[in-house]
This record gives sequence, C-alpha cells and structure tokens, in this order.
Amino acid sequence: MYPKNAWYVAATPEEIADKPLGRQICSEKIVFYRAAQGVAAVEDFCPHRGAPLSLGFVRDGTLVCGYHGLQMGCDGKPVAMPGQRVRGFPCIRSYPVAERYGFIWVWPGDPALADPATIPHLHWAVDEGWAYGGGLYHIGCEYRLMIDNLMDLTHETYVHASSIGQKEIDEAPVTTKTVGDEVITSRFMENVMPPPFWQAALRGNGLPDDVPVDRWQICHFTPPSHVLIEVGVALAGKGGYDAPAEFKASSIVVDFITPETDTTHWYFWGMARNFKADDQALTDTIRTGQGKIFSEDRAMLEQQQANILRHPDRRLLMLNIDAGGVQSRKVIDRWLAREAPAGPAEPAAPASAQVAA
Amino acid sequence: MYPKNAWYVAATPEEIADKPLGRQICSEKIVFYRAAQGVAAVEDFCPHRGAPLSLGFVRDGTLVCGYHGLQMGCDGKPVAMPGQRVRGFPCIRSYPVAERYGFIWVWPGDPALADPATIPHLHWAVDEGWAYGGGLYHIGCEYRLMIDNLMDLTHETYVHASSIGQKEIDEAPVTTKTVGDEVITSRFMENVMPPPFWQAALRGNGLPDDVPVDRWQICHFTPPSHVLIEVGVALAGKGGYDAPAEFKASSIVVDFITPETDTTHWYFWGMARNFKADDQALTDTIRTGQGKIFSEDRAMLEQQQANILRHPDRRLLMLNIDAGGVQSRKVIDRWLAREAPAGPAEPAAPASAQVAA
Amino acid sequence: MYPKNAWYVAATPEEIADKPLGRQICSEKIVFYRAAQGVAAVEDFCPHRGAPLSLGFVRDGTLVCGYHGLQMGCDGKPVAMPGQRVRGFPCIRSYPVAERYGFIWVWPGDPALADPATIPHLHWAVDEGWAYGGGLYHIGCEYRLMIDNLMDLTHETYVHASSIGQKEIDEAPVTTKTVGDEVITSRFMENVMPPPFWQAALRGNGLPDDVPVDRWQICHFTPPSHVLIEVGVALAGKGGYDAPAEFKASSIVVDFITPETDTTHWYFWGMARNFKADDQALTDTIRTGQGKIFSEDRAMLEQQQANILRHPDRRLLMLNIDAGGVQSRKVIDRWLAREAPAGPAEPAAPASAQVAA
Repeated sequence: MYPKNAWYVAATPEEIADKPLGRQICSEKIVFYRAAQGVAAVEDFCPHRGAPLSLGFVRDGTLVCGYHGLQMGCDGKPVAMPGQRVRGFPCIRSYPVAERYGFIWVWPGDPALADPATIPHLHWAVDEGWAYGGGLYHIGCEYRLMIDNLMDLTHETYVHASSIGQKEIDEAPVTTKTVGDEVITSRFMENVMPPPFWQAALRGNGLPDDVPVDRWQICHFTPPSHVLIEVGVALAGKGGYDAPAEFKASSIVVDFITPETDTTHWYFWGMARNFKADDQALTDTIRTGQGKIFSEDRAMLEQQQANILRHPDRRLLMLNIDAGGVQSRKVIDRWLAREAPAGPAEPAAPASAQVAA
Repeated sequence: MYPKNAWYVAATPEEIADKPLGRQICSEKIVFYRAAQGVAAVEDFCPHRGAPLSLGFVRDGTLVCGYHGLQMGCDGKPVAMPGQRVRGFPCIRSYPVAERYGFIWVWPGDPALADPATIPHLHWAVDEGWAYGGGLYHIGCEYRLMIDNLMDLTHETYVHASSIGQKEIDEAPVTTKTVGDEVITSRFMENVMPPPFWQAALRGNGLPDDVPVDRWQICHFTPPSHVLIEVGVALAGKGGYDAPAEFKASSIVVDFITPETDTTHWYFWGMARNFKADDQALTDTIRTGQGKIFSEDRAMLEQQQANILRHPDRRLLMLNIDAGGVQSRKVIDRWLAREAPAGPAEPAAPASAQVAA
Repeated sequence: MYPKNAWYVAATPEEIADKPLGRQICSEKIVFYRAAQGVAAVEDFCPHRGAPLSLGFVRDGTLVCGYHGLQMGCDGKPVAMPGQRVRGFPCIRSYPVAERYGFIWVWPGDPALADPATIPHLHWAVDEGWAYGGGLYHIGCEYRLMIDNLMDLTHETYVHASSIGQKEIDEAPVTTKTVGDEVITSRFMENVMPPPFWQAALRGNGLPDDVPVDRWQICHFTPPSHVLIEVGVALAGKGGYDAPAEFKASSIVVDFITPETDTTHWYFWGMARNFKADDQALTDTIRTGQGKIFSEDRAMLEQQQANILRHPDRRLLMLNIDAGGVQSRKVIDRWLAREAPAGPAEPAAPASAQVAA
C-alpha cells in the first residue's frame, strides 16, 4: 500500500548515463533513459513481442528495442521500426519524470495529476557551500518499516552501537508533531560525549573530539516517503542546534524510500553537509562510513518483515518513541484515501494498528 | 503447451557415457542411461521408496537404484533387488528412445504411437564431408519463444550486432511459406559486406574477407520444435545460394528446442559445415563463437517470458517478420489438436493471438 | 506431521555461547540463549515491533532486543525497556528447555506437559571412557525420510560404497522388533572383510585391519525422532557383539533428527566411542570422515522428497528391510494420535501406506 500519485526518487543520473535502466517502482516495471529532450520513462515492455525495452539502447535520443529494433517514443507511442508502419501499433504507458536535485523523479500514478512543482525543494542540493554523497540499497521489506526505522532513532543505540549510537539517545525524551503533511520528531541530548562518527566529524571540522557536546536529531517526514534528518553536535553550552557554525558539525541525513513491491523497496540514502563542501575525499569517506552504518539495518528490517508476514494478526506496539512512524503512516493513509475508489474505507494494516501500552 | 507425441532431442551420448542422466522433458522426469541393448529411458522414480534412479548407476547394462539396490528394467519393470522378490512390485513408465545422428531422442507421449522412422533425417550428421559442433543451454522461457526467435533473424541486427548482425538484414525482405508441416522463412541480401562471423568463415575457407558477398538465411521449422537454418555467403555475383562451392562459405545452424516445463526449455544448438570437416580446431573455434553469440539471446528471452507472464492479457504483434514464428505455432497447434481429448478446442494462447498491424 | 509434545535436540551449547541463536523447530521460530539461570528459549519475535530477538544480545543474563532495547524475560514477559513501562506489553511464548548431555533440548508443544525427566538418558555422554564428536546438517526433506534412512542400513552398500558399505550388508538378514516405544533393527554379518571405515577403526584401536571380522549394526529408534546405532566389528570368531573389548572396535552412531518444517529438518549427527577417549585428534578424524559419509545421503534424501511431493498419490513399498522405518512411523503415529484433537483420525500419509510386495 503506497500512494501512486506522488513523486518518488527512481534513480540517479549516473544510472542512465550510458544505457537505459529497467527498474520496478510501485509495482510498475519502468525503463528510464535519457531522451533527446531530457529524461524519459515508459513501460519496460515492447508492444511488438513483449521484450524488455531496458535491454535496448538509446540512439539519437530515441529508445530502440534491443530485440527487433522498434523505436519507442517517450510518450509510449512507437515511432518507427525497420520495414514497418507503426501507426497502428499499440502504445505503452509513459510516466511523468523529472531530473532535479541530482535525482531522477518519477510519478507512477495518474499523469494528469503530476505537477513537477510539487517535488520537494532540496536547498542543500542547489545551495553553494553544500556537498552531497550517497548510495542505493535494495531492501527486502515494505517501505513503511524503513520510515518507522528512520522516524525513531532510538534504534541507533542498538543497531549502530559502534558508530552513531550512544545510550543517551535512549534516555533523551522525544517530541513528535505533525504540521500539515509533515511529521517532525526531535530529540536533544545535552552535554554528552560524541560517539565515533561525530568525533570524526568534529575532527573533520577542525574541532576537538574529546569534549562534551550538545547533540540533536530532527527527523522530517514528508509524503509519500521522504525522511530528511537534521543531525549534529555543537560544543556543549554553545547553543546546541542554534550554536554558531564555528562550534558545530552538522549535516542532513537524506532518505528517499521508494516502494518496489509490497514487501521490497529501493533505499536512496545519503548525507548533505555544509562544511568542507569542496573536499571530495571527505565526501567519499563519509559515504563509505554511512553506507556501512546503514547496511546494519538491513538484516533487522528484512527479518522484521518476515516476522510480520508470518503473524499478520499480531498487533504491534505504538509507544511514544514510535510516534514519528505512527504519525507518518497516518499522513500516508490520508494520501491513500484520496486515491481509493469510493466505497468502504481501506482497513488499517494490522502492523499499524494502535495498541494501548 | 507442447505436443507429447513427438520425438525430442533429450541429450547427447556423452551425457550418459559414464552414468545415468536425470532430465525433465515435457514435464516428465526421466532418467536416461545406456542399457545392455542400447539407450533406455524410464521414469526417474524408484518404486521402492521414490528415490531418483538417476542417482544410481548402470551395472552390466542394468540400471541400479543408488539407495537400496533395486534393479530396474528398461521397460520400467523391476528386475531384481537383493533379498527381495520383485514380481509384485509396481512398475514405472518407460519411454521410447533412440540414439541417432549424434543425439538421444525421446518420445514423451503415448509409446504405442512412437515410430523411430519419423525421426527427421539429418543428412549432415551422416554424410562424409560434414562436421558438427554444438552445445546445450537451459533457458528460462517457453520453447515457442525460442522458435519465434530463430524463425525471425531480424533480431541478429540488434542482439548479435557485433558478430552476425548487420543492418542489411533489417532491410532485406523476408519470405515465408508453409509446405505441409514445414515452415520456411528465407532472406537474401545481395552485395553486402560480410559481418565479423562470416569474415572469419570466409578466411577459414580460403576466401577473401573484405569484398562484397551475397548472403542468405533459410530457416526450416519442422514440428515439434526443430529449426535448421541454412546460412552462408558467396562472393558477390557468383550465384549466391547456388554459387559453386569454391566461392562460398556456408553451414547449417542446428537448433533442437526441447520443452522442460511450460516456461523453460533445453536448447541444443550447434553448427554443421561441409568445409574443412576434418579440422577439429576449427570446429572448436566455431562452437566457442556460436556459444557466445547464442548466449546473447538468453537475457532477452527470459525477460520477455517474465513480461508475458506479467501481462497474460496483452496481445503481441504479428508482423510480416514474425510470419515464420506465427506459421510454426500454427503447425504446433495442429499437432496439439491431434492430441487433445474430444471436446472444446484449446483456445489459442494470448501471446500467439493475431493482431492487425 | 511431527509430535510437538516431545523433547528435541535444538542446538549445541557452542551455538549459544556468545550470542542468541534463532532457529525454527517444528515450525516454531525460537530464539535460544544463555540466561542468568541457564539456557532459555522464547519466540523469536519482539512484541514491540516484531523484530527478531535473535539479532539482539544477552546482557547480564537478559535477552535484549537489538532494535530498540526491549528486555525480554525468559518466560516471554517483557522485563524492561528504556523510557517505557512494560507492564501492559503483550507476552510471547516461552519454551521449556534443558541443557543435558552436551545438547540443548527444547519442548515445542504444551509446556505443562514438559518433564525434563523424560529426556532420554545418554550413558555415553556422561560415562568416563567415552568420547563424542559430531556435527549439524540442514537437510531439505521431512524428518521421517531420515528416520527411514537410518533404520534401514541396507543403503550403506549403495550410498556409502567407498567407506562403510559392503555387499554383505545387503545379503545379511535383518530383524526388527518393537519394545514399547522403542524400535530395534539388528543385522549381524559374520566372517566378512572390514570396509575402509572399519579398517581405520581397527587400526586406531591397535588391531589388524586385514583379517575377517564379525560386524553388527543395531539401530534403536526412540520417539520422537532419535536414532542411536550400535555399530562395530570384532575379530572373527571372538564372540562378535559380545566379544571382549580387546578384540573389537565399536561405537554408537548418534542421530538426533529435529523437524524444522514439514519438508526440512536439522540433522545432528555424531559418533560416541569408548576407546581412546582422550585422543582428540582421533575424535576430529572420525568427525571429518563421518561428516563426509553422512553428506552423501543429502542429495538422495532431498530428491526423494521432491519425487514424493510430485507424486503424493503414489504408495511406496514397505519391504522387510523397511520394517525399521515402518515400525518407527507407527510409534510416531501413536504419539501424534495422543496430540490430535478428538475427531476423525488423521489418515496415514501416502508415503507410509502399506503395499503388499
């Protein structure tokens, strides 16, 4: 269950630099490619004999089927084929796409509703003084379990104990609020020792790494499934989140969580930072470290998914620490309701049912 | 959907040289082995405890179960077992088999209808002056998609662009005719430059490789699923297909396409040639090259199969270039109709339905 | 179909030495760990968000969920969680467990019926003068096919021809009797040459390896699925099974066969011996050799399982050599009947149906 009338991150530009890319998004098998007028996306299905167009190639900005040479237009209408008149050929679906902020975005739902202006503005992707590095994981769980994961960073203490976790996360209270469609979960830890990842960031930023800091985590969920997390540390007593730049190291954890099927998703993760933006070696170091940390979630999430599928009747707990995920799911449910045909409302999935605790 | 009352290539003699071979043909799990009186084939199921007989061995021409020693007759009737009287033991199916032309042939249907005289005559396999080399691939698509593939060589331009493909294939008209149960698709290209594979063949045949040639492709489908393709080039203007032998390089592409399940098949491919037949090194070189070329079809066919299974309702196009496959499927349908029990006719599979185009 | 009100071997102590172990037993997903008061076992499902507890850790004898830190009691009742009151949290199942004879035992059924006193006494595991070495295999067939395998050692002649098999096994008559719930199958071979495994054992025991021996195999099945086999050889004419210790080499083949699902099981195999018990190198050598021999059964059993699943209607034979397995299945059926709710009796599985032969 995912909204289809929404912009999702589908790929990075490098993935379609040389050849078409076949990728399933929200159960739609799509081929992405760089057409004459920019990025394009159509069904990964040649109307001639059903071959995957993603095994073809792009010639002069036109997608060519790699089986018998049918040329497909970016509107899903065949353009030409050697020795054939294609006027009567069936068409395939095309999908609204946009290239923005270093990502390829796709709208898997009703094209008539797609408005690129509703792609969220990512200031760190366009502002001078910011750098970004990230990666992509294929994860075997439904996308909402990843949203839960990211909207409750308590898990850092356990899953990421050796890098960003610390016991004070567990102990600090968490605040969750919903503003329109945005859900914000905040946690502030004052006068704590920085864990290894932040020690390195302090050093990278020219600050001492062995003194107490004020640490913050502010998770922002926006639908359909984006989670941007402001994270950082400031030397203790300098104002924390509001401290002057010279006393802190901070960044934005970027998470675009794109459903593939009901039980799998594409996880675009990364980090944007506004210090030493020109230091490509630092970008690479951070990406490697973050990639390792984020891979620690995989086994947990995939086995959690298997457990939930085994026990569809069990109702999970919704504690205060889970409020971020719970509120995010409510926003998603509102989006889903807008897409649902008139009729009985979709019952909430058991995994999101409320339990008094 | 495949005819069962038909001779299929099941294996090569080398595969059963040392020990029994278990292989599924037309959904039948069969064990092939070399019995006292020649090749034999029975169900791969020991009536004692259901063990696979293919894990056993052949002793003095008798198949012995590798679990508890039951000796199976090539008629599917147990012969002996240590310490047991096997008279009352249940029997298993046996299958008509024949070893001919360098292949093991099996008849998975009604044994009463099997006549080895109906195995097609392969002159190149018995005539002096011909050599043959080939291989076996397991392909994850139904056998008819492979027939389509081979009865429309337009795909060479795209799938095999670096070896046997050239744009003139696309541009040359194709002619298809059906003679009884045989479907013949022909394409002639005059005065074209030879692609790399044929350059090598010309050189191997002592001819110049940098001059124009006349090229031909004549595909012969015979049921249930054999495709033999006469291919060759002659120095331009020497008569093409009918040119004297000293001006040409030609061969027969051999394709035996044996269903395993409804969505998988065994693909026995090879090439027979009537020049330098004694040159085993050349045979090996051709086999290696052909094996590489034919492996290029795999991803296309397997993803085509996946697309068709995803969209069972979609009707594919049947263009003039597809006529070879379309006519071949009609022959297969006639064979299937002969096997069908009286009653409503089997509806054509959507993938073979006609679409005006 | 397996009894659930029974003690099964679930693991070895080494498997839970450092961290929890997740393992499915009789379709129950269970996490085993070393708690403060000893080994413990609860459902591998955190009631907070469904995470697998087996990915967590043990701290001060308490199992901690590796996702958000819920602390689970060994009775399946949450003990604590950072920042939470767990009193109202749902509980999970706990399982009776015991550590005994070098194994972790579990009772996957009704805890009220679990009595550790009914764990079978394994004298070789506690007596001085005995040594044990073994291993664990995951096998893709139902546990009863493994019981059949071990209660009819005729298969050694075929499956293990190069190590413990010899033709005299086939030729020697077998005797099967049932005493209460125990099934005993015996085979005695007099004046035979020892096969390679026993030659090595004779040498290891300081005896000549090139003279005739009397050999015995006495298989003991006890429910739910334990098979202990007395095996050995004595110099011919010295009394065979009853010969003085100085003339023989003997041991106990240990097989604990624990169902995972209806078509898979955990196979704990090993060998206990009462000679050179202090020779750890000998233990390792025997373990390596036995591991290789027992791995030879895997392909046979897994393909037998596949054949049986393909032909659920076929009735397998039940010969005299199969009597051990047949009788053992009858004991299992009695145990199953005790667990069945009142109502129509469970029909026998086709694979165990009697066929006149």
